[in-house]
Amino acid sequence: MKDGATLTRRGLLVGIGAVGGAGAMYAAMGALGLAPSGQDKEYTPPRPGDFSLRGKAAASVVILGGGVAGLTAAYELGKAGYDCTVLEARPRAGGRSLTLRRGDRLTEENGPAQEVTFGEGVYFNAGPGRIAQWMLAIDYCRELGVPIETFINNNAQAYVHTNGRTVRARTARADMYGYIAELLAKATNLGALDRTITKDDQERLLEFLRRFGDLGPKHEYDGSTRRGFVRNPGMDGGVPIPPPGSLHDVLAAATGRSITNDFGYDQATPMFQPVGGMDAIVRKLEAAVGPDRIRTGVRVTKITNLDDGVEVAWAGGAVKADYCVATLPPHLLAAIPHNLGAQVTSALRTPVPVAAGKIGLEYGRRWWELEDRIFGGVTETDLDITHIWYPSHDYFSDRGVLVGYYNTEREAELYAALTPQDRRRKAVTQGRKIHGDKYGKDLLSSVSIAWERQEHIKGGWVRWPAFDSSFTLLQRPAGRVYFAGDWLTHLIAWQAGSMESARSAVTQLHRRALQSQ
Amino acid sequence: MKDGATLTRRGLLVGIGAVGGAGAMYAAMGALGLAPSGQDKEYTPPRPGDFSLRGKAAASVVILGGGVAGLTAAYELGKAGYDCTVLEARPRAGGRSLTLRRGDRLTEENGPAQEVTFGEGVYFNAGPGRIAQWMLAIDYCRELGVPIETFINNNAQAYVHTNGRTVRARTARADMYGYIAELLAKATNLGALDRTITKDDQERLLEFLRRFGDLGPKHEYDGSTRRGFVRNPGMDGGVPIPPPGSLHDVLAAATGRSITNDFGYDQATPMFQPVGGMDAIVRKLEAAVGPDRIRTGVRVTKITNLDDGVEVAWAGGAVKADYCVATLPPHLLAAIPHNLGAQVTSALRTPVPVAAGKIGLEYGRRWWELEDRIFGGVTETDLDITHIWYPSHDYFSDRGVLVGYYNTEREAELYAALTPQDRRRKAVTQGRKIHGDKYGKDLLSSVSIAWERQEHIKGGWVRWPAFDSSFTLLQRPAGRVYFAGDWLTHLIAWQAGSMESARSAVTQLHRRALQSQ
Repeated sequence: MKDGATLTRRGLLVGIGAVGGAGAMYAAMGALGLAPSGQDKEYTPPRPGDFSLRGKAAASVVILGGGVAGLTAAYELGKAGYDCTVLEARPRAGGRSLTLRRGDRLTEENGPAQEVTFGEGVYFNAGPGRIAQWMLAIDYCRELGVPIETFINNNAQAYVHTNGRTVRARTARADMYGYIAELLAKATNLGALDRTITKDDQERLLEFLRRFGDLGPKHEYDGSTRRGFVRNPGMDGGVPIPPPGSLHDVLAAATGRSITNDFGYDQATPMFQPVGGMDAIVRKLEAAVGPDRIRTGVRVTKITNLDDGVEVAWAGGAVKADYCVATLPPHLLAAIPHNLGAQVTSALRTPVPVAAGKIGLEYGRRWWELEDRIFGGVTETDLDITHIWYPSHDYFSDRGVLVGYYNTEREAELYAALTPQDRRRKAVTQGRKIHGDKYGKDLLSSVSIAWERQEHIKGGWVRWPAFDSSFTLLQRPAGRVYFAGDWLTHLIAWQAGSMESARSAVTQLHRRALQSQ
Repeated sequence: MKDGATLTRRGLLVGIGAVGGAGAMYAAMGALGLAPSGQDKEYTPPRPGDFSLRGKAAASVVILGGGVAGLTAAYELGKAGYDCTVLEARPRAGGRSLTLRRGDRLTEENGPAQEVTFGEGVYFNAGPGRIAQWMLAIDYCRELGVPIETFINNNAQAYVHTNGRTVRARTARADMYGYIAELLAKATNLGALDRTITKDDQERLLEFLRRFGDLGPKHEYDGSTRRGFVRNPGMDGGVPIPPPGSLHDVLAAATGRSITNDFGYDQATPMFQPVGGMDAIVRKLEAAVGPDRIRTGVRVTKITNLDDGVEVAWAGGAVKADYCVATLPPHLLAAIPHNLGAQVTSALRTPVPVAAGKIGLEYGRRWWELEDRIFGGVTETDLDITHIWYPSHDYFSDRGVLVGYYNTEREAELYAALTPQDRRRKAVTQGRKIHGDKYGKDLLSSVSIAWERQEHIKGGWVRWPAFDSSFTLLQRPAGRVYFAGDWLTHLIAWQAGSMESARSAVTQLHRRALQSQ
């Protein structure tokens, strides 16, 4: 998931602040300045002999929540033989890593149930849908044997729809880059940079700008084959699309946000997805943990930290364990009676749930491949649907699922308030503005999710007003209760955040369990 | 293939010139300016009833060359029942669309043979390796049932190696964009654009530049999380890589060419490849044409245009057919005795063969995925290897083939002059400059190709000094002899060019065959 929350310049500053000695790290890095492969090198998983070699019995752990954080914690602890029990309130583990297929039934609070009637093999990732190659989710795919394939996050052939106009992404990019290059070349040639950079550097800059903007001999931008063709090159040079509008027109079109969408560290091309659906990761985690250790339909009502363990109660039952790892969303966790203190409750109440919604539109004909010639990728819009995703897999198939909207906050709430039928109707109305009437044809079925209306989840993710002492407080245990979840990391709304956080809790818990008498 | 020959601004102008009435096309396009799905709509393939409904017998056609153009021509003509014979000089059809696997033996003129010893399922596309989504090769994949997957042509996580320095592509891009944005913002704020654009447009421009360059509040560029991390964000904000050098340093690094590499219409992200190897297309074409119609090892020695047909002779045989489609490379075709006239010979001699080389390096361990965290994509260099390609498929496998060089012209000739062992040694020496010592470890086998030394091909592709009257002359038949090949199109070095050209020849030939008495 995660979109509004792209890593920002601000995020960088918070990060440096939080981590402290960044200067020392820089100094230690050597000349090349290359980022290493990931943080997995820093993690030492619990090992089979950890307890037995010390003559200890494995500790028991009750894990609240069977989402990615809870399952990862159970999986990692299980490597050293911990006696884990995962309590999950929903009928199925996985949390937000939800892939919907034929036969699934999606309920929501105060809304009708939706029956998923997709064709065989068709799926819709209702939660997370993509993985950056540096993220821990890639390591788990490797470790668990989940095959991955490319997720296309940026397609030059997809569209940008802003201010009522639709252009190919490649056209929007070529025009914006072309005019920027022309302007900067003009300013350079007028001497505006003479005090800033040397003449030699100006020459280097101009050489780059010619290439960057595909400028003409006088550094003018008057179009480029990069923009696209009405009839493609072949026996002749083809027929390019009409020349660009003026700089004013291009600026007024406001395509800027769209063409920088994959610039972030977490969104950069290429991205990846498990073959066959994102939930392949949680299914493999479940299998590794052992289905018998996962109790679904258990809604926790009380958490009691004791001197020698933790007691967790629910309607009709209770369990006592040496430790607890609580991975529920913080706003739900805050509402469960506990004896962890007011500071913990206050900290849990600090992050703000964010609404997020998606609709999967199943078509019986991949017209976007056949007619628009778009294979995977994202169309960016300034409409309330925000994005349209085209499937990055099963190309040439008959059926395919478009993500007809993937929005957050106000736009998500707008759609959440509608019935599934009205969400679909509205999504199709918007999509028609981009793709025309075919967007309403060959539509076989749909399913939409409003994450803030999902029972026991109630939000797409959370937003911390600041990564302050409440945030760091919960990164440490309260008594024998540890917290975990993407919400405790700087990778909010990414599965990698849940995994990082689970590893952090497991590391702290395991160190303590080995040291305890 | 195709790299040096990216579609250029010049290409555009030639195109407009060649096609003529572009203005009319523009006018007809409507407001949106969207490119249509491709040129396939304009092509009417020969149909089964075309001859029989007219009470005619199907004509016979001898096709010279069993590469992509020849096979496509035979396939398309076969749809109407033409009696086609494909004459191929090499031991196997496919031409430059050559995928090498375990057990293959690659010979070259005046050089030792190379035995391919790759692991099971490992392959190396020695010729074309990628397809743009608008190209005809995609249509043939669909029509022939060849499954496709994403080819990653641009990976932010891959490297740029210029002037002896190696940085991640994302870092090179962030720095170049950051400083460009800063400079243009500075010029704007200094009033340098006051005569060029309005204040309102300046505001819009600044808003874009902030986003484009990830600029600070005073429009300064001093780094960005987009550049990458020493330790990734997780429980804290992570540790970013050291801050960028000065604008002078960044310009001196000369990464500009590398970060604009996928801006072209033919190179834009994403691209695609057939699952399991590029030759899936020619294998399917072969099967559809009928292997009995393809005669390999036949080296044509004479082409005679007659009033009522064409006679083609080779050592030990000859065939007469109603028509001929000659798809050999023009420089080889020019050397075959014929009676098509001096103008044809002269035209065939006009395009200049271009050297192109590739090496496949098979490793027993995908260290680029494990250690560099690079899944697919291309590292751009200013070394003589030009590029390194990482495989866009079978992620997490043990083995994998890197393309250790893919170069043209002078650099290709440099490697071509070496023995296969020395090519490999040199490629590894260069790769070590980027990846360090691991580039020389776990290397299981290799195979290299110098296309200008491939018998009956003798070149990576050709370059026309100009798309002049020689070019258009050969797009029309000489008597009953038609020409086809990528070399007759504006898509030189792309399979799509061969296919477009085959369709053009088939269309002309079929119209004539139906009209003839």
